[in-house]
Amino acid sequence: MIRVGIIGATGYAGAELVKLLHDHPEVQLSFLCSNSYSSQKFSDIYPHFKYRIDQVLIDTESALSEMRNIDVLFTALPHGTSFPFAKEALKNNVKFIDLGADFRLHDGDTFEAWYQVRHEAREFLSKSVYGLPELHKEAIKNTDILANPGCYTTASILALYPALKEKLIDPQSIIIDAKSGVTGAGRKADISLLLTECSESIKAYSIGSHRHTPEIEQELSLAAGKSIALTFTPHLIPMQRGILATCYGTISPSYMDFIENSASSYGYQDSYEQLLQRIYELYYDFYKDAAFVRVRDDVLETRFVKDTNYCDISIRIDSRTHRLIITSALDNLVKGASGQAIQNMNIMFGLDEKIGLEG
Amino acid sequence: MIRVGIIGATGYAGAELVKLLHDHPEVQLSFLCSNSYSSQKFSDIYPHFKYRIDQVLIDTESALSEMRNIDVLFTALPHGTSFPFAKEALKNNVKFIDLGADFRLHDGDTFEAWYQVRHEAREFLSKSVYGLPELHKEAIKNTDILANPGCYTTASILALYPALKEKLIDPQSIIIDAKSGVTGAGRKADISLLLTECSESIKAYSIGSHRHTPEIEQELSLAAGKSIALTFTPHLIPMQRGILATCYGTISPSYMDFIENSASSYGYQDSYEQLLQRIYELYYDFYKDAAFVRVRDDVLETRFVKDTNYCDISIRIDSRTHRLIITSALDNLVKGASGQAIQNMNIMFGLDEKIGLEG
Amino acid sequence: MIRVGIIGATGYAGAELVKLLHDHPEVQLSFLCSNSYSSQKFSDIYPHFKYRIDQVLIDTESALSEMRNIDVLFTALPHGTSFPFAKEALKNNVKFIDLGADFRLHDGDTFEAWYQVRHEAREFLSKSVYGLPELHKEAIKNTDILANPGCYTTASILALYPALKEKLIDPQSIIIDAKSGVTGAGRKADISLLLTECSESIKAYSIGSHRHTPEIEQELSLAAGKSIALTFTPHLIPMQRGILATCYGTISPSYMDFIENSASSYGYQDSYEQLLQRIYELYYDFYKDAAFVRVRDDVLETRFVKDTNYCDISIRIDSRTHRLIITSALDNLVKGASGQAIQNMNIMFGLDEKIGLEG
Amino acid sequence: MIRVGIIGATGYAGAELVKLLHDHPEVQLSFLCSNSYSSQKFSDIYPHFKYRIDQVLIDTESALSEMRNIDVLFTALPHGTSFPFAKEALKNNVKFIDLGADFRLHDGDTFEAWYQVRHEAREFLSKSVYGLPELHKEAIKNTDILANPGCYTTASILALYPALKEKLIDPQSIIIDAKSGVTGAGRKADISLLLTECSESIKAYSIGSHRHTPEIEQELSLAAGKSIALTFTPHLIPMQRGILATCYGTISPSYMDFIENSASSYGYQDSYEQLLQRIYELYYDFYKDAAFVRVRDDVLETRFVKDTNYCDISIRIDSRTHRLIITSALDNLVKGASGQAIQNMNIMFGLDEKIGLEG
Repeated sequence: MIRVGIIGATGYAGAELVKLLHDHPEVQLSFLCSNSYSSQKFSDIYPHFKYRIDQVLIDTESALSEMRNIDVLFTALPHGTSFPFAKEALKNNVKFIDLGADFRLHDGDTFEAWYQVRHEAREFLSKSVYGLPELHKEAIKNTDILANPGCYTTASILALYPALKEKLIDPQSIIIDAKSGVTGAGRKADISLLLTECSESIKAYSIGSHRHTPEIEQELSLAAGKSIALTFTPHLIPMQRGILATCYGTISPSYMDFIENSASSYGYQDSYEQLLQRIYELYYDFYKDAAFVRVRDDVLETRFVKDTNYCDISIRIDSRTHRLIITSALDNLVKGASGQAIQNMNIMFGLDEKIGLEG
Repeated sequence: MIRVGIIGATGYAGAELVKLLHDHPEVQLSFLCSNSYSSQKFSDIYPHFKYRIDQVLIDTESALSEMRNIDVLFTALPHGTSFPFAKEALKNNVKFIDLGADFRLHDGDTFEAWYQVRHEAREFLSKSVYGLPELHKEAIKNTDILANPGCYTTASILALYPALKEKLIDPQSIIIDAKSGVTGAGRKADISLLLTECSESIKAYSIGSHRHTPEIEQELSLAAGKSIALTFTPHLIPMQRGILATCYGTISPSYMDFIENSASSYGYQDSYEQLLQRIYELYYDFYKDAAFVRVRDDVLETRFVKDTNYCDISIRIDSRTHRLIITSALDNLVKGASGQAIQNMNIMFGLDEKIGLEG
Repeated sequence: MIRVGIIGATGYAGAELVKLLHDHPEVQLSFLCSNSYSSQKFSDIYPHFKYRIDQVLIDTESALSEMRNIDVLFTALPHGTSFPFAKEALKNNVKFIDLGADFRLHDGDTFEAWYQVRHEAREFLSKSVYGLPELHKEAIKNTDILANPGCYTTASILALYPALKEKLIDPQSIIIDAKSGVTGAGRKADISLLLTECSESIKAYSIGSHRHTPEIEQELSLAAGKSIALTFTPHLIPMQRGILATCYGTISPSYMDFIENSASSYGYQDSYEQLLQRIYELYYDFYKDAAFVRVRDDVLETRFVKDTNYCDISIRIDSRTHRLIITSALDNLVKGASGQAIQNMNIMFGLDEKIGLEG
Repeated sequence: MIRVGIIGATGYAGAELVKLLHDHPEVQLSFLCSNSYSSQKFSDIYPHFKYRIDQVLIDTESALSEMRNIDVLFTALPHGTSFPFAKEALKNNVKFIDLGADFRLHDGDTFEAWYQVRHEAREFLSKSVYGLPELHKEAIKNTDILANPGCYTTASILALYPALKEKLIDPQSIIIDAKSGVTGAGRKADISLLLTECSESIKAYSIGSHRHTPEIEQELSLAAGKSIALTFTPHLIPMQRGILATCYGTISPSYMDFIENSASSYGYQDSYEQLLQRIYELYYDFYKDAAFVRVRDDVLETRFVKDTNYCDISIRIDSRTHRLIITSALDNLVKGASGQAIQNMNIMFGLDEKIGLEG
């Protein structure tokens, strides 16, 4: 059994992690830590779990003193606050998985520029692995410190990575218009998140400045083979869970040449259909070993991935404007946070990556 | 008093029209027509209005025979079904306002290509006016046949028109990512619109093929001074009312030159802020006489325009990618349908365009 | 023009009051007071009203000093906090309308027992009028100090008053099971009111102990002609606005005798139908002059009264258990708070009670 | 492995059954039948299950011919339509579990009076077992034909059974005010169930006449030891899943005597608290072996039982009116339908009743 400690167990991502790990057949929950609610039961905060997860929450100090008795530590904390836990975990040979942003960007200066806090554990940045299993599975297997990707980020990267890698689209043309349910904003007493304020309304926010942007660019630059900048616009949607990313990119000249050549024989419509077919094949192939990516040709809805670890991807071409439009959908608390963290844990411990994430 | 007849009075747009016109001080509701519910009271279908609008709904045949007794006819019908009403109205010197799509595209072939039905009143296309008062007020004053714009369309055009007119953005770079509440899909017994199916979910639909696209292009081509094609992607959002359009365009070379020149003196950040300020001034100026456009610099939310005839517009620059991002918000049943139709009626009859649309 | 001051202008009831009074043709908003947001514009807190209600909010001290320049003061405050405003208003011959609970109970001890705060203006209790126009219109006309009823209360009393007055039901048998949207809980940063916590869920709360209970009992005791106690259970419903009260009472012996006698001639079913018909006539008659009560025989839904000042009432008999089941529906922010307060103001100032409350 | 066939696999209860049984370790889904969608994949109708449950739906005729190859048949059908399947199953020694209403009432005439259809399999009524495991576990073990209780019914009976059995309340005083999410109305193209029509609204319906009433009375009469009649009022709530039943009963004279006697020594408040404590102990004891009933003293919310097979129960006393108020909460599609059906299947096949229903 893997002995697990969780810091930040009562936020939405933390609680989802507790729920999923409680049912994980290879895991024992050694401690759940929450400074806000320490010495209360987990089921006092989340009464769903009464008689099921009545474990008492401990405070940070106690958690740090328990470090020797666990195999892996998860942190689900606001950015800039996981550093001491990372240090203590690694000192004790405990694997460390951070659901927050602190180790996602390989470059400490970029972190500090976007998050406006000092990075207090730069020594770990070079060994920290960005935990997107579809891209970095080998590295994940061998790391002790894992940065679990953001929710918007996972949806965006999985949608666009193959297209960039295959040079289907112009890397300077990328626009990601993403929509998220309100759990993405966290569990906090904020008037703007009241049902009265945010049901029956939508808004765009952090236009041109959302902190998931550099993370998406970091990974997609790997795909493109060069540094890229893109536009990312998040939106708040009146529902609890789910992210839909609508991703736009202009079809690259070489593929437009294909269209032009093909069109002379088959007409434009058929040529675009052939191109779409070809792109689908590239995507199917790219994700053929991915346990939790479903490339599909029907219309995505976020409810189809709710409470699952799937990221669904669908592809369309706007032939009138020569753009590829890729939509991706996931549950921000599962594939966008806790489910993916467990998938990573499974890989780090040599287990089947699907354990605890199906059904 | 203006004597009004309404065909299609029990759909969502039709009912909103009834509600607003009932309170309009210069209007008398001569007849309400609904084939589905004829001989029932309007308040049987919309019990909100019991004791207030208990008028009995009449059928199409009766409506046609009443044509001599009204001054203006509104139709709120599925596309391809308003033609006979238009003919009968104009024959009787009754002004005609269509909330549907039948007279919005000036080109009959384009209509038939996108809607896949025959246009049976092409003779009116040349005299029909596209009823966006912010662009065509003079023509609206003098027409007898008015095509009221679509909901997505109004939000998109109002957001982008000034930017294109001022050549702020590259006309080939436009992407409109729009989000709508479910009243946009109409009042019909469709499983996909059940609360259980569409609450707690979002989806993109009609990617690259939505019928509002040619309408947006028609009007924005006027702004650009040449024919343009753009990408338009609609999304269904789990709320009743409201549209948010997030519009993207690449800043044009001349304005990028301005940035480069200015940056050498003031730095990039200040230069972008100056540019944004300048764009705001252009927008304020463009809409200075528009009664129902609010150019604003805060974050838009669709609830801020709910139950009003306003279209709110906000502007941002993504300086990292040189894109202008303009968001616009409106209530799809008011400024996106019935409110705008009444605004048009007011103009056509020489009234203050705000009558019946405030409060 | 009636010059109006509002204390507590940014809570949900206060803001609805501002909105409605802004459109009231006989009212001038002299000041809007909010300690939390003083010196900001009203439209900064409620951006819906940008360019429409940009009035700057003042603080309490300024409000008190403005008392001589107004004709009526509204307070929309937490219980136990309106006393100084009442005193200052009356001292200045300003009419005083309290949307809170401080002057609703005629008995100061009862107030203190239920609200657990000292009543600091007992001298006004005897002259304060309970502002339910359907019951106390004459007294409302002549008072300077008016206690506007609670939301649950209005729905409950209007549903049951005629039944008790006509001795249709046993006064000891009354159970009120009421359901409210979340605006009823006020605008406050409380985790339990987040969309994530309260959408897709319902709960009963304050079972047997809700503070609206003595208010309902006070007024229904008037109807019964003796002091009564009843069971009142409120529920929180995942929607913004609306209250539905489902009210149960056992048919009284005299009416059961009617049934038994009638049944021997007409059978039970017909007899119960006759009884229901008779009860409807009593209700129609009781409310024949009430501008905002709609007695109706169809199924009530709270959406049918949304954004209106109506209270809808529908009556059923459960013939198997000899119970009368009366449902009532209203908008908790309108007829349950601000609309009713304006109706009261209209009456106090000799205006038509419907002014500003239609359309 | 238990070989299972399901008739009505695409309604909400049917689909939940498919989902839960697909993950049940002792079950093999032999066939899924849906006349509306036969020859499509289950995942075409419920795209959540793409790549997971792609089984092709068969039609009724095929289902009947497969009867020999299964061990148990579930039907999730409208009332009055399960009779031929019951006959065919029992003829083939296949156990039969009906999620509908056809075999719940032991009396055929009562069925026909409430459902207004002929009962075409009266021969099975005497052997059919009412599948509430908390009451009838032994009978469930030994039956071949099981009537799975309704959703409102399960919540109501579990709340009130111990109180009636222990004669805590007057059996003629019972009122059940129940609230349900919209999945309770089924998956059908009905305008009244559209998000636009039923979000942001509540209503009571079928007042005094809902078909779950006789079922509740049948079982609670067993508890009371005599035939009882009660008032049951269902409400539609704007959420997908969940039922809350608020149940009222007047404390019986013997317990009121206890209060009076105790009050002379301890005062009323303490005496009521003692009584409540005693009632809780009775409930804890009554449900001590019930795997899926959680008697709890905190406030119930339906979200705490969402996606689980739990029925939560909480008890309060209104000491002012001497009433017991018992609330119960469950997920209408799980404990109110499919989860309970699986719990029953487990018992019928000698398995641990919790298998497939945890996690």
